Amino acid sequence: MELYLIRHGIAEEHQSGLKDEERQLTQEGRQKTKKVAQRLVKLDLHFDLILTSPLVRARQTAEILIAAGLSSHQEESHHLSPAGNIHNWLTDWLETKNFSPKAKLALVGHEPGLSNWAEILVWGEAKTSLTLKKAGMIGIKLPEIGSALGRSQMFLLIPPKYLL
Amino acid sequence: MELYLIRHGIAEEHQSGLKDEERQLTQEGRQKTKKVAQRLVKLDLHFDLILTSPLVRARQTAEILIAAGLSSHQEESHHLSPAGNIHNWLTDWLETKNFSPKAKLALVGHEPGLSNWAEILVWGEAKTSLTLKKAGMIGIKLPEIGSALGRSQMFLLIPPKYLL
Repeated sequence: MELYLIRHGIAEEHQSGLKDEERQLTQEGRQKTKKVAQRLVKLDLHFDLILTSPLVRARQTAEILIAAGLSSHQEESHHLSPAGNIHNWLTDWLETKNFSPKAKLALVGHEPGLSNWAEILVWGEAKTSLTLKKAGMIGIKLPEIGSALGRSQMFLLIPPKYLL
Repeated sequence: MELYLIRHGIAEEHQSGLKDEERQLTQEGRQKTKKVAQRLVKLDLHFDLILTSPLVRARQTAEILIAAGLSSHQEESHHLSPAGNIHNWLTDWLETKNFSPKAKLALVGHEPGLSNWAEILVWGEAKTSLTLKKAGMIGIKLPEIGSALGRSQMFLLIPPKYLL
């Protein structure tokens, strides 16, 4: 099974009166994310599910991916929010979902969570050693049997400029 | 300083009477590598130096990168051969070369050496956790001060199909 960890696109700056979770993608953020999504479609990538953080900038990113045709299923999970973590929850969730062993799942979220989780899946601990830009993507292959933590394989770490 | 670890393109199969170090890129290997190189030029990537393993398939890969305009300097090093290793040698070599702190260097070589070295630079040990395809590339940012081992940052891991 393959996980694609996708960071939300460029969003509005923090400002007083605007809750962090309400920050929207900027015009530039929407356009770049759309181009990235279109390129991924051309590369024949298709996700069985796009799971997104409930924050507006992540949900808008997921919606752009869906609109481009990268998946027809979108769900939200608070585990993908900035305060969440996936490594304790992921394995149980994957079991309950009963995906095919060849499934490709996209998780849309935030930094430093996504790259930390990637490190935990691949190397067993997070050292903040990966650079994941906005609208960038990490690809991880989970092992067929046993725990994914520290036993997964990384095959992709791509900044958006390589996808425009 | 940024290191780009580039795996040679698709090469002839092993066969009796053909030394491993003499194996050449196939027609498909040349074409794919050329397309990858052209795409990298379009992305404004330019290397101050391309250092290559002395094996024919790596040298031919480096020559294709040079011909596309990715660099005007090519050197060979046996440290990049399949039996070599870079982590003991890299720091000394970088010091003697006196590159600018903003230099971008390409190292053309083989698996599993390249992805092992990437892991050692970024996490301090090699666990064979990275998948680097032929004509694929890993991008690593070295720290400005001190040892690079276990202290570098990975910003790129790209299979060739994302560059065709």
